[in-house]
Amino acid sequence: MKIAVLGAGAMGMLFGGYLSRRNDVFLVEVNEDRVRQINESGVLIREKDGSDGRFFPKAVSKTDGLGQMDLVIVFVKAMFTQDALSSNRGLIGKNTYLMTLQNGAGHEARLLPFTDEKHIIIGSTQHNSSIIENGHVNHGGAGLTSIGLPGGGSEVLQAIAENLTACGFECVTSNEVKKQIWTKLFTNTAASSLTAVLQVPLGFIYSDPAAHELMVKLCKEAVAVANAEGFARFEEADVIAGVETVCKNAPNGYTSIYADIRDGRRSEVDTISGSVVEASRQLGVSVPCHEMIVSLIHALERRPRA
Amino acid sequence: MKIAVLGAGAMGMLFGGYLSRRNDVFLVEVNEDRVRQINESGVLIREKDGSDGRFFPKAVSKTDGLGQMDLVIVFVKAMFTQDALSSNRGLIGKNTYLMTLQNGAGHEARLLPFTDEKHIIIGSTQHNSSIIENGHVNHGGAGLTSIGLPGGGSEVLQAIAENLTACGFECVTSNEVKKQIWTKLFTNTAASSLTAVLQVPLGFIYSDPAAHELMVKLCKEAVAVANAEGFARFEEADVIAGVETVCKNAPNGYTSIYADIRDGRRSEVDTISGSVVEASRQLGVSVPCHEMIVSLIHALERRPRA
Repeated sequence: MKIAVLGAGAMGMLFGGYLSRRNDVFLVEVNEDRVRQINESGVLIREKDGSDGRFFPKAVSKTDGLGQMDLVIVFVKAMFTQDALSSNRGLIGKNTYLMTLQNGAGHEARLLPFTDEKHIIIGSTQHNSSIIENGHVNHGGAGLTSIGLPGGGSEVLQAIAENLTACGFECVTSNEVKKQIWTKLFTNTAASSLTAVLQVPLGFIYSDPAAHELMVKLCKEAVAVANAEGFARFEEADVIAGVETVCKNAPNGYTSIYADIRDGRRSEVDTISGSVVEASRQLGVSVPCHEMIVSLIHALERRPRA
Repeated sequence: MKIAVLGAGAMGMLFGGYLSRRNDVFLVEVNEDRVRQINESGVLIREKDGSDGRFFPKAVSKTDGLGQMDLVIVFVKAMFTQDALSSNRGLIGKNTYLMTLQNGAGHEARLLPFTDEKHIIIGSTQHNSSIIENGHVNHGGAGLTSIGLPGGGSEVLQAIAENLTACGFECVTSNEVKKQIWTKLFTNTAASSLTAVLQVPLGFIYSDPAAHELMVKLCKEAVAVANAEGFARFEEADVIAGVETVCKNAPNGYTSIYADIRDGRRSEVDTISGSVVEASRQLGVSVPCHEMIVSLIHALERRPRA
């Protein structure tokens, strides 16, 4: 397959590297230094066992003349998705699939101006990756990747799923991807975010009446956004019960975003609660509690350390 | 003057005690034990110098047959104001003044069903008091008391102000009381509350962009409530600039509500941000950020201690 990966960040390099095993891969990146580095030395992927694999996708900063791709995978930061697609429109023909595996919700809305709904692939992946240095990433975790069409009929993606699997990303097609993404997001945006702000374990979100009330408000806002998207239908009561179950089952569980705030690190709030806020703006839904959570967490990231 | 003080809490006992120096004072309290205690042993007021003063206002649990008062001072908790006035309607004639010196905003709205606007006295006092034990209070701080009519023309209250002054509460009349109450409340609800949630000094609320954004949102909500009340007119930009000045002038200042949360104590949030929420409900104004701040602070009060 002819595949373009937009963005040579940690995930873009991982996917661009692995997929180059069996495909003609173009890694599209605006940073010229990184393009040069990758073309000279390849993408270096550090595995969990400490070994390094080297891969040679073609890194490019301009895509004029490359022709249309079979698949374009978007791995730029959400806020740059539309710019990246606009700048590389020539890659997209009417049979080209656009795929997003970005964290958070609402990414398909950004793809829609560039193709029809039947050529948009959404997905979630358990692989993660972080940058060690220019051109070198750490492949920190692996697992299943699910892909699907937002409107269903995802079976047509079987060949793509098999290609990913053959390259090292175990992949299945599913008509429930949208639901899976939101279900994971509900817990993160309504419970994990609060464990960060309050600096408590998950159980407190269930047991404390005020924390529980906040969780319920956040669930309701997120459900309103999810339902406004229209791809899946969620009931508030079911979502709240689901998040409650997660909290009850891990009463002493500390989330990674809790630890980020405890340790004064930059957190992933923008891809969690922040993605709900972004989707809400596109959809015209009001989410004041989410907006506040995002601001609180950013402020907490920067507060003076005691 | 014939004066009824509703509520024999810390402030009610202080005012009931001092005012009994020169007035016929009825201290109205639903707790029969406290009524009996006060009638047997009086109200004991511990002064800053360690001395105790003993006063004998008449404590009562029922007010039938006492006749109409010249002045009724409400010192019950805000949520009980209307119950207390309903149960003691016989005290209120058409010349009776109803006075609130309760912390926070919106108290006069609760008095309005019981008299006309020209007989409602609002005020703020720098005196504070806390209960040592039944019938015994600690007079922790003194200072100026300002009283006024919400609609202006407060000069008619001169005799009451002189009476309070003569009893030990230095008191002035003012047509700016409402403005003073709100101005103090803006800083507390938009900045102090955030120092509690974020556990930072006041300066951070000015210097951090996300904290500043939250402060601005809280100011806008509070201004909307204050203006909906209609007694005073505030401009958002002026209020924000005023709160910014407080933060800039005390960059390393820690608020008492910050210390309450740091030390895991119950805070005064209900009389600060909580009073804005209560007023907003009466006035039909939406204050989602204030609602969230109140819940966050209550949750933080109860979080497990590290």
